Amino acid sequence: MINKLIEKIEKTEAPIVVGLDPMMKYVPEHIQKKAFAEYGETLEGAAEAIWQYNKGIVDAIYDLVPAVKPQIAMYEQFGIPGLVAFKKTVDYCKEKGLVVIGDIKRGDIGSTSEAYAVGHLGKVTVGSKNYYGFDEDFVTVNPYLGSDGVNPFIKVCKEEKKGIFVLVKTSNPSSGEFQDQKCGEKTIYELVGEKVAQWGDDCMGDKYSYVGAVVGATYPEQGKILRKIMPKTFILVPGYGAQGGKGADLVHFFNEDGLGAIINSSRGIIAAYQQEQYASYGAAGYADASRAAVLAMKEDIRQALQNR
Amino acid sequence: MINKLIEKIEKTEAPIVVGLDPMMKYVPEHIQKKAFAEYGETLEGAAEAIWQYNKGIVDAIYDLVPAVKPQIAMYEQFGIPGLVAFKKTVDYCKEKGLVVIGDIKRGDIGSTSEAYAVGHLGKVTVGSKNYYGFDEDFVTVNPYLGSDGVNPFIKVCKEEKKGIFVLVKTSNPSSGEFQDQKCGEKTIYELVGEKVAQWGDDCMGDKYSYVGAVVGATYPEQGKILRKIMPKTFILVPGYGAQGGKGADLVHFFNEDGLGAIINSSRGIIAAYQQEQYASYGAAGYADASRAAVLAMKEDIRQALQNR
Repeated sequence: MINKLIEKIEKTEAPIVVGLDPMMKYVPEHIQKKAFAEYGETLEGAAEAIWQYNKGIVDAIYDLVPAVKPQIAMYEQFGIPGLVAFKKTVDYCKEKGLVVIGDIKRGDIGSTSEAYAVGHLGKVTVGSKNYYGFDEDFVTVNPYLGSDGVNPFIKVCKEEKKGIFVLVKTSNPSSGEFQDQKCGEKTIYELVGEKVAQWGDDCMGDKYSYVGAVVGATYPEQGKILRKIMPKTFILVPGYGAQGGKGADLVHFFNEDGLGAIINSSRGIIAAYQQEQYASYGAAGYADASRAAVLAMKEDIRQALQNR
Repeated sequence: MINKLIEKIEKTEAPIVVGLDPMMKYVPEHIQKKAFAEYGETLEGAAEAIWQYNKGIVDAIYDLVPAVKPQIAMYEQFGIPGLVAFKKTVDYCKEKGLVVIGDIKRGDIGSTSEAYAVGHLGKVTVGSKNYYGFDEDFVTVNPYLGSDGVNPFIKVCKEEKKGIFVLVKTSNPSSGEFQDQKCGEKTIYELVGEKVAQWGDDCMGDKYSYVGAVVGATYPEQGKILRKIMPKTFILVPGYGAQGGKGADLVHFFNEDGLGAIINSSRGIIAAYQQEQYASYGAAGYADASRAAVLAMKEDIRQALQNR
């Protein structure tokens, strides 16, 4: 799957992943109204609204980008109906040829991580049959529990030819509280980065490992350090746009081959029509606004990489 | 909710939580057969089997213990039908008067953690209405992203009078890889423990805070240290029984008042009938075997606390 992701990045010339993190305040009123008319102001109504909203965006951008990253929390908040919308979104994006990175940030002790890995990437056995639960292509994984918590995901990735992105240095303001703690010569995020590189050694695609890392765009200096610690690791970079990361901050996340990183933008793309810059599209043209925002982001990154 | 948990611990004289972590290999054949006869060997069939299995155990033990801890991964592996069984289990346990600790180990950046908090502990807004998604009483939270990731859970806990348990030192063999790293004078788990105590200061029930901690029974020495760092923190202690923790290892997790800790056992109780000790119950008597295992665990802990 890492080979497919890279192939698609090269084909679209866009190292970009669109974060499908639907919040109700982003969903245009006409979509909400229609969903509520059918299902009432219920969890099912909310789930229908975010699904229709997603579908509009995916239809408008699927030819421009290699991948999408639905954030499961935004679906899970609507309980079971929300998770049904998550599954529908995953399936639809795959139908459209997109690589799907499930942003689930799971991680637990061995047998429990195995259950998560099986449910999101692999197949679960029921009697004499096997079923995929959510069937994303990649998922994000929290490393706080150490190798025991990560290895079951790697095992399933090997079987299914899928991949993971392990949280190394997250994009949020307080990520330094524990991740930046210095242990001897190295910080925790460097130690996690070293482990990611080590886990990845045994999991190589053609050019990069399918054990990737998450490093926030909001920390370009740390990105520079981690790029060196993890030369064969693909880095998923959140925090561009709405969270404050700019094109110029991103260059150090890439290798000389122009690869090695994929930049996520969520709000900045899916709620583009609510920004002044794209206001002329209006709520009715929200999906076209998202398309315009993808094109602008692509150009921003292209220029940043050209000028480095 | 922390007051209710303590009240129930005192009433049952059992600082015990039963981990409802159903794996298919634990589910007696007669339950599997019946579920498959109705739903086929499908995800729905598996979900029905684990739900019926859970129900039998809950009916057999609900008067003996204050709380249960369903591990969501074990349900999530069966996709949407599995999560429906999770929700059913949560609802049923609450009907039976049990405190429900959702072992979900979520944690993300601010707005995303907020969505998890809303979905699992609070209410989500849909138009003019509010709905509970999963509605557990407590959930477990991963601290790797720092305060940003934890505070949204605390905010919802305040509104809903619920609680969380933050992972501090987990029970698995590799938990030391990052958690035991020494940063200056202190380890990461000590730093996380200090933060938990600090977060909890502002969140006090009558005797203890509703910001709790997870510390594995398999690390009694670290438990001793953390008990001192977090005197007002309730500690959820996994790792007893099947993972290797013994009654005598547990005493340092408790305060002098005999409170401050609640010990989890999962496999050791729910799959008791598969152990030699309880084999005479047979698969048909699996729930009675679970009841017997709870009573034995209660006695083990009582003796350990008496002999300290």
